[in-house]
Amino acid sequence: MSQTPPAVTVAQIAGMIDHAILKPELTRAEVDAQLDIAAEHRIFSVCVRPSDIAYAVQRLAGSGVAVGTVIGFPHGTTSTAGKVAEVRQALADGGVELDMVVNIGWVRSGLLEQVEQDIRAVVEAAEGRVVKVILETALLDDEQIAAASAAADRAGAHFVKTSTGFAGGGANLHDLAIMKANVSERVELKASGGVRSLDTVLEMLAEGVTRFGTSGTATILDDLAGRIAGSTAPGAVDETSY
Amino acid sequence: MSQTPPAVTVAQIAGMIDHAILKPELTRAEVDAQLDIAAEHRIFSVCVRPSDIAYAVQRLAGSGVAVGTVIGFPHGTTSTAGKVAEVRQALADGGVELDMVVNIGWVRSGLLEQVEQDIRAVVEAAEGRVVKVILETALLDDEQIAAASAAADRAGAHFVKTSTGFAGGGANLHDLAIMKANVSERVELKASGGVRSLDTVLEMLAEGVTRFGTSGTATILDDLAGRIAGSTAPGAVDETSY
Repeated sequence: MSQTPPAVTVAQIAGMIDHAILKPELTRAEVDAQLDIAAEHRIFSVCVRPSDIAYAVQRLAGSGVAVGTVIGFPHGTTSTAGKVAEVRQALADGGVELDMVVNIGWVRSGLLEQVEQDIRAVVEAAEGRVVKVILETALLDDEQIAAASAAADRAGAHFVKTSTGFAGGGANLHDLAIMKANVSERVELKASGGVRSLDTVLEMLAEGVTRFGTSGTATILDDLAGRIAGSTAPGAVDETSY
Repeated sequence: MSQTPPAVTVAQIAGMIDHAILKPELTRAEVDAQLDIAAEHRIFSVCVRPSDIAYAVQRLAGSGVAVGTVIGFPHGTTSTAGKVAEVRQALADGGVELDMVVNIGWVRSGLLEQVEQDIRAVVEAAEGRVVKVILETALLDDEQIAAASAAADRAGAHFVKTSTGFAGGGANLHDLAIMKANVSERVELKASGGVRSLDTVLEMLAEGVTRFGTSGTATILDDLAGRIAGSTAPGAVDETSY
């Protein structure tokens, strides 16, 4: 009945988390509370609303937590020129990673050349910063997920990412497998949308996901710390083994 | 039991409708179908996704239907620079009305000077085109609706508008009354979100609303035509009088 300790450390998982602080109604005080959670858990980054970037950079100075943002979020049907301008302002404000939403309507219409150009314009404006392409898998079928993943790869994006968290659905292993099969080795996978438990994270990690978007950071990392501690203590109960 | 004919004509109501074609997942063919409904009913305008403006302008050429779009949609937390760039591209593409989303987080944080500056930047970039400020009333309390309405007025916006249609809730008479009470005579009211029936339209019209955002255009106008015809026909049954 003794549990196998997870093969990862808390610091390793923390280093793969983009803590999402994206709801439009969040007040400054609510954003502060989330930024503090990020700093306390020494995670890789926060993913904030564009209008919060400069503020978050200032508040997180010295914490080691990077600040990223979203582009064309959450619908993806912003004009390419609009997305590019958002990127430029994000960089000026100190944002270092950019999670852009693909033009979902174009993907579903088979306008893949336009999809690719839209992504490429963002990648070029990002001047080497990491660009993640949110596919919003809940609104796409398997073929469209495959095509959008390949377009993101051709356009030079660094990650393909499942979801905004605002369209229902969310990350699942089926969609992640399609994404992985349709990008080159260079392109990483980010799971987001409904990623709220340690078990989900460990399961997706095993399938090759290298970044997690979640607002459940504290729960996930505390659970991992507890499981690591518990697995070395005699008599620890592993509920997941039942 | 005979019905009083509505005091408005079909053309008058049609002239107050912005037909919403905004869902991110709509394909080109689905957009086409909606544009055709707009042209057929000779309404005031369509409100399309930013990446559809140029296409809609071309397809609606000669129809008399104007093309508007959304800015910072639907979360409103795009950077001001991003919103301004979206406006410029929208005008270049032929858009003539701009429905921008207020920075909801700033409104809820009481950062009203920033709210006003954000709106003013869009109004200035719009170079005289009509700007409507979407408050997303479902996410605000009465005081915040009042403050945001007043800020939109001070910033020079032409309309205050209730909802994006993507945050739950929608237009209601309570919120519209607050909006009306907190703007000058110059500023008009647009009701949107859940505006799907003729009765809703007539009720809001009586309260001073001059523009309606809806995807129920055909139903509303067909119902009005039927009611006008029915009210002059002997023996017409008015279900709304029971």
